Amino acid sequence: MKFNPAMNHVYLNDAFKSSTISINLNLPEQSTSDCNLGASFQESKELVAFFVPVTEDGRKVPPAASRSILDRSRSCFENCKRRLFNKRTLHKRLPILRWLPAYRSEDAICDLVAGISVGLTVIPQALAYAGIAGLPVAYGLYSSFAGCFVYIFLGSCKDVPLGPSAIVALLTYQVAQGSWQKSVLLCLMCGVVELLMGLFGLGFLIDFVSGPVASGFTSAVSLIILSSQIQNVLGIKANGNTFVEVWRQVFANIQDSRPTDTILGITCIVVLLMLRMLSSYRIGPAPDAPHSRCQRVANKLFWIVGTARNAILVVVCCIMGYLLHSDQHGAPFRIVGEIPPGLPSVQWPPTSLSANETADGNPQGFVDMVHSIGSGLIVIPLISLMESIAIAKAFAFGQPIDASQELIAIGTANILNSFMQGFPGTGALSRGAVNNASGVRTPLSNVYSGTLVIVALMFLTPYFYFIPKATLAAIIIAAVVFMIEIKVLKPIWRSKKSDLVPGIGTFVACLVLPLECGILIGIGINVIFILYNVARPKLSFELLLTQSGIEYLMITPDRCLIFPSVEYVRNWVNKHSIRQNVPVVVDASHVYGADFTTATVVGSLISDFQQRQQLLFFYNLKPTIYELFKQVSAAQLVVYYQEHQLENLLKERNYSQKSDPA
Amino acid sequence: MKFNPAMNHVYLNDAFKSSTISINLNLPEQSTSDCNLGASFQESKELVAFFVPVTEDGRKVPPAASRSILDRSRSCFENCKRRLFNKRTLHKRLPILRWLPAYRSEDAICDLVAGISVGLTVIPQALAYAGIAGLPVAYGLYSSFAGCFVYIFLGSCKDVPLGPSAIVALLTYQVAQGSWQKSVLLCLMCGVVELLMGLFGLGFLIDFVSGPVASGFTSAVSLIILSSQIQNVLGIKANGNTFVEVWRQVFANIQDSRPTDTILGITCIVVLLMLRMLSSYRIGPAPDAPHSRCQRVANKLFWIVGTARNAILVVVCCIMGYLLHSDQHGAPFRIVGEIPPGLPSVQWPPTSLSANETADGNPQGFVDMVHSIGSGLIVIPLISLMESIAIAKAFAFGQPIDASQELIAIGTANILNSFMQGFPGTGALSRGAVNNASGVRTPLSNVYSGTLVIVALMFLTPYFYFIPKATLAAIIIAAVVFMIEIKVLKPIWRSKKSDLVPGIGTFVACLVLPLECGILIGIGINVIFILYNVARPKLSFELLLTQSGIEYLMITPDRCLIFPSVEYVRNWVNKHSIRQNVPVVVDASHVYGADFTTATVVGSLISDFQQRQQLLFFYNLKPTIYELFKQVSAAQLVVYYQEHQLENLLKERNYSQKSDPA
Repeated sequence: MKFNPAMNHVYLNDAFKSSTISINLNLPEQSTSDCNLGASFQESKELVAFFVPVTEDGRKVPPAASRSILDRSRSCFENCKRRLFNKRTLHKRLPILRWLPAYRSEDAICDLVAGISVGLTVIPQALAYAGIAGLPVAYGLYSSFAGCFVYIFLGSCKDVPLGPSAIVALLTYQVAQGSWQKSVLLCLMCGVVELLMGLFGLGFLIDFVSGPVASGFTSAVSLIILSSQIQNVLGIKANGNTFVEVWRQVFANIQDSRPTDTILGITCIVVLLMLRMLSSYRIGPAPDAPHSRCQRVANKLFWIVGTARNAILVVVCCIMGYLLHSDQHGAPFRIVGEIPPGLPSVQWPPTSLSANETADGNPQGFVDMVHSIGSGLIVIPLISLMESIAIAKAFAFGQPIDASQELIAIGTANILNSFMQGFPGTGALSRGAVNNASGVRTPLSNVYSGTLVIVALMFLTPYFYFIPKATLAAIIIAAVVFMIEIKVLKPIWRSKKSDLVPGIGTFVACLVLPLECGILIGIGINVIFILYNVARPKLSFELLLTQSGIEYLMITPDRCLIFPSVEYVRNWVNKHSIRQNVPVVVDASHVYGADFTTATVVGSLISDFQQRQQLLFFYNLKPTIYELFKQVSAAQLVVYYQEHQLENLLKERNYSQKSDPA
Repeated sequence: MKFNPAMNHVYLNDAFKSSTISINLNLPEQSTSDCNLGASFQESKELVAFFVPVTEDGRKVPPAASRSILDRSRSCFENCKRRLFNKRTLHKRLPILRWLPAYRSEDAICDLVAGISVGLTVIPQALAYAGIAGLPVAYGLYSSFAGCFVYIFLGSCKDVPLGPSAIVALLTYQVAQGSWQKSVLLCLMCGVVELLMGLFGLGFLIDFVSGPVASGFTSAVSLIILSSQIQNVLGIKANGNTFVEVWRQVFANIQDSRPTDTILGITCIVVLLMLRMLSSYRIGPAPDAPHSRCQRVANKLFWIVGTARNAILVVVCCIMGYLLHSDQHGAPFRIVGEIPPGLPSVQWPPTSLSANETADGNPQGFVDMVHSIGSGLIVIPLISLMESIAIAKAFAFGQPIDASQELIAIGTANILNSFMQGFPGTGALSRGAVNNASGVRTPLSNVYSGTLVIVALMFLTPYFYFIPKATLAAIIIAAVVFMIEIKVLKPIWRSKKSDLVPGIGTFVACLVLPLECGILIGIGINVIFILYNVARPKLSFELLLTQSGIEYLMITPDRCLIFPSVEYVRNWVNKHSIRQNVPVVVDASHVYGADFTTATVVGSLISDFQQRQQLLFFYNLKPTIYELFKQVSAAQLVVYYQEHQLENLLKERNYSQKSDPA
């Protein structure tokens, strides 16, 4: 039923004389329970839903006036208990309970296919991303299996595959500078921070990373990762902390480039890009039309080859490396080399560095190590969550995503990873797409990808010896080149040009500064935009006539009045009021919020008007805000809620139109 | 004339089929000029004032369709020139030009009285506040005259007397730690920062200091100043950087307190508080009734004694000190001692410290000195402006205050002060009140107070020798004790309890941390409140029926949708839409702003609804925001502006009511 403003109206006949306002509520029958505060005015519909208590599924709480206090406190206690230990909370924190009881054999087949697809992607990626983190390739594999098993129990989104990600690997490198001890400790610390953030419900923090900032950050990271891999493609050395340094070194050393590496690397990139296109290539008629058996097999094959392209390329190049290897001259291109066989030993993450493990030769204690991690402890969890949530969002189709549960899952996985000597990981976007495209049904698919990594570690490491470094670099480059979001510029430019400032600001800051500074600068720029927005509301004025022809000035602020804006509003209102010199009405219909500073400044505004003997009224002021203002300037605050009341208010004050100033 | 929504309505008949929306504007005659974009919808009155260009004095610009481009660009150029070099700007930047031409002899008399009153207040205050800054008393006088002469030319508010202030003196002490070289350099640097802030129009920054934060800060500062002066009243030594340290030292050394100092100090405080009451005490009938000559003289005398109480007390105590002084035993209480006679030499502020001028014995260069000033360079200008604006506001009665011009005046005064070896100053609230109560008419009153300080420096310094330190401490204590704003707690508690958090947070932080950290923490807490406010809009929902009885869900967000809130809004809308499973209308009447992130998330929201085959419409979306959303999700965005259109939109989509889920 449409809420009828005429039914319960706020009546205000004599506000000024009595110095208070009588709010006379004719409440409809259904809202007389003791919890209902059925306030209503012209815009009542926006408020009523908050005052009427509703249960979780949207039904109204029945009237409870007859219940005793004892009853109520008992039920309150039971409510708390129920909320803490109920099935709902358990299902929320252990999502496996939601899907496992309904698990069917066809789900198992889908999960097996998806799990193997992801496993074939994660192994070459793990080897490659270890390079981005500045660590030996084995650490990539160490980081890739524990998270899978954790996610089966704690993960809330079927599409998210936990493991190393290019962005987090780069952040790890920037913080740990290639020290495996620091990387592993960072993994533990990040895990703890993520777990705590999840338990305290701080997942909402990623809301403060706007679209343009996220795009700027991702693009800069991709460009940095791409640059860091150029050296492996060319077979040269080019180390540097910033984007500019790396490229300067590349150009300085380009004459040393090894032709074999260069040719192999570029060929691999071209092959990967072509195979990538293959995965979405279809022969035969339109997708929905019937295909011949042959066409279907060919299309399936295209898809498999396209999806497993990284694994296929690694196998091919590995064999090539093995065949071209000679005991005298070694390999014709730089290869990965020895990888310790077997699973990593389970041990405590290192908490101190001896003198020969640090760059400057001084031993470092736990505090020194944590100190060197610094703001990484905030930024890495934030970025990890961002990447993981990005996958969840991409495939959730509007289902709500529980960011806190994701943080708990990622945090637990990273804590476990750190005991396997892994570096920090998260849900990687590229594997999430593979997972989804392979038809994943539940997080159980992680069993298969995790097992595949373990099998690789136990039996395949001797064969990884011959993998060319240029191939791994090519895998990274072919992946990150699509993460440079140039195409987002055009819609931002066309829709909201000012959003380019935080976007491009973040991009440039991330390229020239450490990444965590870069993204914090981007968020800072965005916060300044928000604050400016709050501090400078739009005000409009109109000269209107009452029914009896008395001229008055209607001033309408378009948003809430809170402290950064109130002095501006006071000056604005005074300026225009002095100029027009007629009674002034402030239309507070859009003013949904105010604070104590507002109340004091409104008090000053009222006394400004009294000094000038000009009349000031407030129209449609929400009762909560009226209560607030009343505390500071009770006697002089005049509010009305229906247009025709203005006429009476003016008459009561014996106001008569001055001669026309024009 | 009241704007009539029926006259120009937005017509929207077939939005979905054509994928675009035809906005058919029937503009009234007067708004056909080329600058007018007379958009209008139900809430048109809030927007129309922005689209219709108005001149500075609020009149509408006449239609200009017939003007040629050449004409227009020429007039634009001339406008710019006029704005830069016109009389208005000159009057704004040199306010003396505004009042000097109209200066009359009666103004001169009022200014003389006010100037001398302020002068008699500033001399004892200057001696006392130098102690707060940890400097010899002479520096207080050095800081008190240059600003007066600057303010005559640049000052925009008659009531503001520039000179040392207790708050800024304490900030100076915390930054410079009692080194006169650093204090003077700080004065120069602050002056430069203030001048630049003024020229770049950054005066609005004080808007971000909310009422509760300002109260918390002022109260903490007053308590710290009071504590720092207790040692002088008791005649003991108690140095410490924080409030807690000072009191610990006071209690540790209290047995060393000198009875003469203690008795003198407490007597002085009591006398000052009584004289303070005297200034507002009146004998005879009510203020407006006629008084006898005797009564008038007595009342005037009360006022003069009350206002000049500091000067009178200093003179009395100084004479007492002189009389009780004996060559053998010295003074019975601690006295100010030698003050170098004469005006300070005009010289460059010190830019480096030699080894014997620093605490640790290491010489400091310019960079080291500036580094040690640190965030003081932001906080001191901000607080200086706050205090000065507080005076201006207190006596402006709604006249707009030009914060940027005040910054320019304070900045120039401090730059000049630094060449006279002064420490930073601003408009001090206590002297502002004296100035106003003495009937000041123009900033010319500053001539007299400035001259009085110069006279004091040239001729009276030998007599200042005998001023007891306890008297100066009593002057400070009797002033700052009224700045502890306990009475503000009650209205905040009654009106908006959450505003106590930044207020008390600032108070506690200022007591236990350096002041600049304290106020930045307070501002930070407030900013978090604002961000939370932006990130979590209130959403309300209502199940409504169309005229033909089709049920739909109306969702109303109460404020602008910008990036920190959009994911929350998307989840909220999806959750309630899935639950109700009827067509959904988002009422965007209160949505006055959006950004690119909003547009992308609205795009996702629309595709969420498409996935579920649920209908989604937007009601009353402002055209600017419609344009923005259209860039991201053109084809599926359906907007309507009049309630009855919903019926047609539902019919076009062949929507029929599902069976009642209840």
